[in-house]
Amino acid sequence: MTNTERESNNPANPSVNVNLLENVKQILKELRLEMLTKFKRHVSLADLLTDRWDTAKFYGFGEGTSCYNNVLILGNVKVGKNTWIGPNVILDGSGDLTIGDFVSISAGVQIYTHHTVDWSVSLGKEPVKRMPTKIGSGVYIGPNSVIQMGVSIGDGAIIGAMSFVNRDVPAGEKFFGIPAVSHTNR
Amino acid sequence: MTNTERESNNPANPSVNVNLLENVKQILKELRLEMLTKFKRHVSLADLLTDRWDTAKFYGFGEGTSCYNNVLILGNVKVGKNTWIGPNVILDGSGDLTIGDFVSISAGVQIYTHHTVDWSVSLGKEPVKRMPTKIGSGVYIGPNSVIQMGVSIGDGAIIGAMSFVNRDVPAGEKFFGIPAVSHTNR
Amino acid sequence: MTNTERESNNPANPSVNVNLLENVKQILKELRLEMLTKFKRHVSLADLLTDRWDTAKFYGFGEGTSCYNNVLILGNVKVGKNTWIGPNVILDGSGDLTIGDFVSISAGVQIYTHHTVDWSVSLGKEPVKRMPTKIGSGVYIGPNSVIQMGVSIGDGAIIGAMSFVNRDVPAGEKFFGIPAVSHTNR
Repeated sequence: MTNTERESNNPANPSVNVNLLENVKQILKELRLEMLTKFKRHVSLADLLTDRWDTAKFYGFGEGTSCYNNVLILGNVKVGKNTWIGPNVILDGSGDLTIGDFVSISAGVQIYTHHTVDWSVSLGKEPVKRMPTKIGSGVYIGPNSVIQMGVSIGDGAIIGAMSFVNRDVPAGEKFFGIPAVSHTNR
Repeated sequence: MTNTERESNNPANPSVNVNLLENVKQILKELRLEMLTKFKRHVSLADLLTDRWDTAKFYGFGEGTSCYNNVLILGNVKVGKNTWIGPNVILDGSGDLTIGDFVSISAGVQIYTHHTVDWSVSLGKEPVKRMPTKIGSGVYIGPNSVIQMGVSIGDGAIIGAMSFVNRDVPAGEKFFGIPAVSHTNR
Repeated sequence: MTNTERESNNPANPSVNVNLLENVKQILKELRLEMLTKFKRHVSLADLLTDRWDTAKFYGFGEGTSCYNNVLILGNVKVGKNTWIGPNVILDGSGDLTIGDFVSISAGVQIYTHHTVDWSVSLGKEPVKRMPTKIGSGVYIGPNSVIQMGVSIGDGAIIGAMSFVNRDVPAGEKFFGIPAVSHTNR
């Protein structure tokens, strides 16, 4: 960006943007202090400017469900009530994703209904593949876990941290590992 | 959002927000160029508007410690000096977290003092569980690793990339895997 | 931040920042609605204000390559054409990183050309280690995978989700696991 380009943005008053930047930084510092004082936490800039329950409601998710600002939500994603959706999560509904109530979707979890393996290795000649994925109610999904397209996870199932789920998980079972396998009753 | 709602925001001058948006985008492009020119890097919008050392200092962390903007910090988290805290990190001090000096907390690492397994599978009837976690000085924690609540990691320990640590790690030991086990002297 | 500090920022008009905050929030809500209506997706605040193709072009990446806003790019990173770079990705070129065409760099992937293990355990006395890394064309790298410094991945290789790649991957091979090993023809 050249100086000419910058000046052309506000030819009458080149100092407008300098003042705006200072004012924006000031607002962010005030919001950050309010978050620390009220809730004893530090959240991202984007989470200072948005509300987790509002974000969830905006996408049509159920009452009591919350969703950090940097969650990437694609296509048809239905989520029930009182579900917690952490930061750095991907909810891919490009092939239809359904999620129940009281689910813990821990930070860094990625739930897919597509993959691009064939697209990449064919140098873009093969299409993206898609299949629907379904997560029941009362499910816990641990941090940084990845759920492959086409999988169904039943009510009350527990998926351990850092698991890769590429097959169905029956209701009430505990799965973990890469790939995730049953550890119920062990 | 309807047009009526938008106009009501600035009834006297509906073009205020259009100009504001253009000015904000212009500022971001200038900050982005400055970051590339001075430091040869691209950082998130939020990291353009904030300072990593200032963020760490704001939460009371020690001198020389830095912290990317999108790190989620919850509750009682104490961090020593010269510790590097990467992007997409979670530092959960809801059950008390202590971290020493010269620690590398690589990108995507999540360190917990609570879990919501029982909360989820009981459909919200059981409370969230909490236990304190402690990380010593001179510890390296590799990318995308998760540290479970209640764990202690001793001084100088090395935790490999993508490890799930659910037991104590003695000082000077090298642990990795899911779950992480000792690989010292192998 | 004290009231005095805040007032000193806009002594003539203390309400400037309140109006600015409301206007910024209003803009973000409008951009969010536009994203939902046009593309049926929710993206981060930063991705509302920036363009993925523009970000890639800005860092000198090839035509058709896209890059989410919160990708951290460090130093010498060369990327070819039509490569997809997801959110929460780290592209570390502090030791020189080269990436080809039609590569899928899934969300949460971290590709390194340095590590800080020795720096941490020596309490800052040992330097950061660096080695160049190379990714060919037509490569798929699954979500949350980590590529260690010094690795070469050949054309058309497939790296499964949640893999830790610490050795070279020949062209056309399928690797996964922690550490990743060959699963070609299995």
